[in-house]
Amino acid sequence: MCVAGCEAKVRAALSRRGFFAAAAATGLAAAAPARAAEPRSFTKVVDLTHTMSAEFPTFMGKPGIEMEREFDFKKDRFNLFWWHIVEHAGTHLDAPLHFSETGLSAEKLPVEQLVVPLAVVNVVYQAEQEADYQLSREDLAKWEAKHGRLPAGCCVAMHSGWGELATSDPAMFAGRDVNGTFHFPGFAPAAALWLLKERQVAGIAVDTMSLDHGASRDFKTHQLWLPSGRWGLENVANLDKVPEAGATLVVGAPKVKDATGGLARVIALV
Amino acid sequence: MCVAGCEAKVRAALSRRGFFAAAAATGLAAAAPARAAEPRSFTKVVDLTHTMSAEFPTFMGKPGIEMEREFDFKKDRFNLFWWHIVEHAGTHLDAPLHFSETGLSAEKLPVEQLVVPLAVVNVVYQAEQEADYQLSREDLAKWEAKHGRLPAGCCVAMHSGWGELATSDPAMFAGRDVNGTFHFPGFAPAAALWLLKERQVAGIAVDTMSLDHGASRDFKTHQLWLPSGRWGLENVANLDKVPEAGATLVVGAPKVKDATGGLARVIALV
Repeated sequence: MCVAGCEAKVRAALSRRGFFAAAAATGLAAAAPARAAEPRSFTKVVDLTHTMSAEFPTFMGKPGIEMEREFDFKKDRFNLFWWHIVEHAGTHLDAPLHFSETGLSAEKLPVEQLVVPLAVVNVVYQAEQEADYQLSREDLAKWEAKHGRLPAGCCVAMHSGWGELATSDPAMFAGRDVNGTFHFPGFAPAAALWLLKERQVAGIAVDTMSLDHGASRDFKTHQLWLPSGRWGLENVANLDKVPEAGATLVVGAPKVKDATGGLARVIALV
Repeated sequence: MCVAGCEAKVRAALSRRGFFAAAAATGLAAAAPARAAEPRSFTKVVDLTHTMSAEFPTFMGKPGIEMEREFDFKKDRFNLFWWHIVEHAGTHLDAPLHFSETGLSAEKLPVEQLVVPLAVVNVVYQAEQEADYQLSREDLAKWEAKHGRLPAGCCVAMHSGWGELATSDPAMFAGRDVNGTFHFPGFAPAAALWLLKERQVAGIAVDTMSLDHGASRDFKTHQLWLPSGRWGLENVANLDKVPEAGATLVVGAPKVKDATGGLARVIALV
């Protein structure tokens, strides 16, 4: 069944597809398709960023930020802190260098790859049934059946429903079982591989702490995705507040020399 | 003289003005006018962010970031750093709390105030004549004569030409004279005050290290601007690559609890 506006979306996808076929013929890199200068428009802004603090749950269990005051308004007439912050906590970027020896560091990602169409794949039902759920090739096929082909240069975001647990139930969000194994959803390596090979995707995003599902031992999705020159986003918020198709994602990635990632401000233009 | 497209811009400004008059009648806060949901569109993305590193010139003279490696791909199969970073270096946000006791911290700025129309005021000629130049009320009047009234909720950016010195001539960018006094352009307090009182502006931005000009002893522009609940951006890059009017600014401000500002990714949608 085709939802309202679906036809227009399919037409748009087809036109992008035509553009990509032309781009491919010129030998452009798969991770960075040039995009046609079609105007993109929006009327609303949605913040997809969690507030970072020493309380925000982290993968490694210890606080991801510590703030140290150097100046105090009462004494100095202004306030200023230094932060001791890890690159991989809060809503943050994984740069290719995070999982490769010579991949792109954060400051080298072309800005055109940070303002991209957003495709949100809803796996809330599946993740409710199984905390270890892995977003599958079939979930991607379902998205395409509904919205048309994934737009060239897009970000594919997993909306598992885990995002709100980060603040409402941090123990569940970052919970380990008695063996120390995490249980939260992520991208199946096979789905990531299919996106790498069959679609033009700039980045993938998750509303959990890791691109891989929590129980992963080998970080296979990280291993496949990041060394290919593409980026990831972890701990994304508010994916329930944006449409599955049609929004533009702005990744306010930190432009820090040699960084393997880092705290990001992630905003959707709807 | 009215440049091409000027008439349309004036019409748009007038319609925004009408909207604001209506908004004001409902008692909305001056710093946060609700904006009409007119679609905004763009075809191009311009990065207004400098690359942050230990070499980037800072106001206080010492490196603004230090990176400490915790994991190394060769040994650990992934790379990860911790950063020791000051809130006020590189292309960064000044939150109201930076110059007030109880002003908004970075995470509390409404996201709608971070995606705003961008007005670029070119004072390159003036700054070439005088390093201590202060953007004036007259410079703002000239911008309005050319482009129409400053759009409600905008960011007013000073383009002094100093931005490229950050990398091409850091000694000049952050240079002090024999008395230790900085010399670079900034916003005149009178211009900031006029914007506060007479226009609806979300934030001001500079391509130098400070909202105030370098020789300022009292940081009067900071003192006026930030406690009013508005934000500032310092060390903005590439203002020569965006139009004086018509672009949208996305301030990828760090969403960190209690922060007085911090490293930002600043992007223009043109």
